[in-house]
Amino acid sequence: MSKTDKTAEERLKKAYEPARLAMKYHPFYGGKIEVIPKCAIRDFQDFAIWYTPGVAEPCRDIQKNPEQVYSHTNKWNTVAVVTDGTRVLGLGDIGPEAGLPVMEGKALLFKYLGGVDAVPICLNTKDPNEIIQATKWITPAFGGINLEDIAHPKCFTILDTLRKDVEIPVWHDDQQGTATIVTAGAINALKLVGKKMNKAQVAMIGAGAANIAIARVLVTSGIDIRNIVMVDSKGILHPSRTDLKEKYPEKWDMALRSNAEGKTGGIKEAMKGSDIVIGASRPGPDVITKDMVRGMAGDPIVFATANPIPEIWPWDAKEAGAKIVATGRSDFPNQINNSLGFPGIFRGALDVRAKTITDEMCIAAALEIAKTAEDKGLTEESLVPTMDDWEVFPREAVAVGMKAMEQGVARIKINKKELYETAESIIRRARGMTQLLMKKGCIRPPPA
Amino acid sequence: MSKTDKTAEERLKKAYEPARLAMKYHPFYGGKIEVIPKCAIRDFQDFAIWYTPGVAEPCRDIQKNPEQVYSHTNKWNTVAVVTDGTRVLGLGDIGPEAGLPVMEGKALLFKYLGGVDAVPICLNTKDPNEIIQATKWITPAFGGINLEDIAHPKCFTILDTLRKDVEIPVWHDDQQGTATIVTAGAINALKLVGKKMNKAQVAMIGAGAANIAIARVLVTSGIDIRNIVMVDSKGILHPSRTDLKEKYPEKWDMALRSNAEGKTGGIKEAMKGSDIVIGASRPGPDVITKDMVRGMAGDPIVFATANPIPEIWPWDAKEAGAKIVATGRSDFPNQINNSLGFPGIFRGALDVRAKTITDEMCIAAALEIAKTAEDKGLTEESLVPTMDDWEVFPREAVAVGMKAMEQGVARIKINKKELYETAESIIRRARGMTQLLMKKGCIRPPPA
Repeated sequence: MSKTDKTAEERLKKAYEPARLAMKYHPFYGGKIEVIPKCAIRDFQDFAIWYTPGVAEPCRDIQKNPEQVYSHTNKWNTVAVVTDGTRVLGLGDIGPEAGLPVMEGKALLFKYLGGVDAVPICLNTKDPNEIIQATKWITPAFGGINLEDIAHPKCFTILDTLRKDVEIPVWHDDQQGTATIVTAGAINALKLVGKKMNKAQVAMIGAGAANIAIARVLVTSGIDIRNIVMVDSKGILHPSRTDLKEKYPEKWDMALRSNAEGKTGGIKEAMKGSDIVIGASRPGPDVITKDMVRGMAGDPIVFATANPIPEIWPWDAKEAGAKIVATGRSDFPNQINNSLGFPGIFRGALDVRAKTITDEMCIAAALEIAKTAEDKGLTEESLVPTMDDWEVFPREAVAVGMKAMEQGVARIKINKKELYETAESIIRRARGMTQLLMKKGCIRPPPA
Repeated sequence: MSKTDKTAEERLKKAYEPARLAMKYHPFYGGKIEVIPKCAIRDFQDFAIWYTPGVAEPCRDIQKNPEQVYSHTNKWNTVAVVTDGTRVLGLGDIGPEAGLPVMEGKALLFKYLGGVDAVPICLNTKDPNEIIQATKWITPAFGGINLEDIAHPKCFTILDTLRKDVEIPVWHDDQQGTATIVTAGAINALKLVGKKMNKAQVAMIGAGAANIAIARVLVTSGIDIRNIVMVDSKGILHPSRTDLKEKYPEKWDMALRSNAEGKTGGIKEAMKGSDIVIGASRPGPDVITKDMVRGMAGDPIVFATANPIPEIWPWDAKEAGAKIVATGRSDFPNQINNSLGFPGIFRGALDVRAKTITDEMCIAAALEIAKTAEDKGLTEESLVPTMDDWEVFPREAVAVGMKAMEQGVARIKINKKELYETAESIIRRARGMTQLLMKKGCIRPPPA
């Protein structure tokens, strides 16, 4: 940590400060997003254009040419953030109402970072088939679906079914989003400590939606699956873990293919001798201990991504010798947060009117994220860009849009330069507008 | 009409002008609404408050105290505009995608006139039970539901079931909304020509969701049901219309109770000798002819509310002797448009966190709309306020909110003065913000 001059008490107070302010600010603003007109309203005669009678003409046009819905409406830029509230942050199954502050926060990030209009859809059902059905029913007004905070293993079926059946991009941020940004961080971290992807020993703590997806994307990016050792709540995955066979096919597959060394035991054993540990398990602190970090190979890399409290506090990891520490929190360096991914990835997918988001589009985004950080100068505390490095988002958009066109999943063609300019201007407008509204008092300053 | 100096050709050109501009402006803006942050974003550290880790605390608070969702999120101000696209304007069953321009227009009006955040939900199903199911599933993030452009007779069951089963206001604008504003207009029109509500002979052309609801509210407001003569596509309703008995219980009920004179025939016969005709049928022109208007009683009142083209062009009605003409269009005087109702009615319902919107709350709104027009000075061309007379919306909000508290359907108590100030400041902010964004170029001027 850069703030090594602080006492443990000061550090803890700082770490809990966002929670205190969140409780004060949320009721002050009464929520975080709103819906506004984005077309001119010069006087009330304009309603004859925007509503009856004029609006009938664009309606008829869409009826005749269904693709025109992308021209006459905001479908082209609108994403539904769909949740059932069964796995909200690290809080577990808190329900759709209690999950709404997260979904509104997601919508805020979608707009401010990616210029995307996102709408929270919190579903009053936990049944996977009903979640699939509800999502299919609401698609006409949306250009994309972002599944959020849905428990596993049902999230796998939900995502796979919707990706197959629906003609707009469906994304589960806790799977693809997290995998994309962790991959970007891992690429740069290994580069920093001078280790090769295909030789790196990887300990993965947690075998939920995130780590299963992370492992898949890491392997596609060059990690050897035999060098991965994954741990779930019952210990290390290996072929004698037949308890997984029926209920957790994705974990079972990992148990068979990973851990060539045949390690057994728990987190400590998994981490022993590893080059990098990727925690995506349950809120800490002390899920990962200092001792465990001390058991890793030289220049240990610790990704402790559990929310809201990482598996190990960064200062503890550093004290135990970690060379690079990353968490999911924005108040520490190296935020391995999917907020670096989805806004730019959806920007690109929407701008080419993509029908889906493929794994290859995710990897294109991961490489571009890693490259953006490298272009700025890689250090142990700037492994990945921060959300302030906003050029990362149009850059990702271009990488994703180009890959979509290359793979034939884009509805329209647009050249690279135009793709960048479109993304850049949409995002610039979203930020400028928010700043303008603050400056002019439409958004008040937070209470003292 | 005030523009009696125009030729027929000029009038027609003017009437079709909004459609021409709509086709040009909709693609220019790429839709009509967007989602933006409404809280301060000073720098990227603020994301630790709005998203992880800080946001976990409001989530936990809602989990413990479910009513807190109204404080920590925008649920208190958010309404879903739900449609299946089966009866969009006067265009019929054009489907959920083709209906989206209308739903976005509705959302625009909700915000600009009532300060309400509305989200289009266009459903990919026409089955009434599935529409009910989908709506129930999405309620957690919404403070109200506005059903829109759903065909009858299923709209009756859908509304009634949802009103019974759901703990937030559910409103079908084509029923309650239209009924509210037509009632306001009818009260003032009869006052202008010096006729009494309880003596007035009423011809109603069309027996769909709108006219069935209008009749119910008119009767509650003083019209004698025996003096109503209603016509559907097969002619005047009367007790020998046994074809209605099974499939259309609402129409059958009207057939039994209305039309004491026992009229038979079609539109012409229904209108003969009537004081007021209320058309809510199919797009004109010439569904109602000049001849039919000539057959009405002295000082005929013509409400031709079909969209996008009224049952009779206003100039034709006037030439045939109509004393007062109202249409659903904003480009003619006397717009009998539900846009005068729902923004203020929902404003009031949301501000007291109402659990439902009762018929009595609708009538309270209708009386306040009528009174607002009267306070400005009643004339034949200013029967009801225009959308520009924006004091009507906070006035309605107060009337509706007070009635909700009186009837015990409000979740919170708030005094009349505070209710007015809240509504007024929310609406003022919405308008001011739109004008600011136009002035500063975030919303560009329409193309030349």
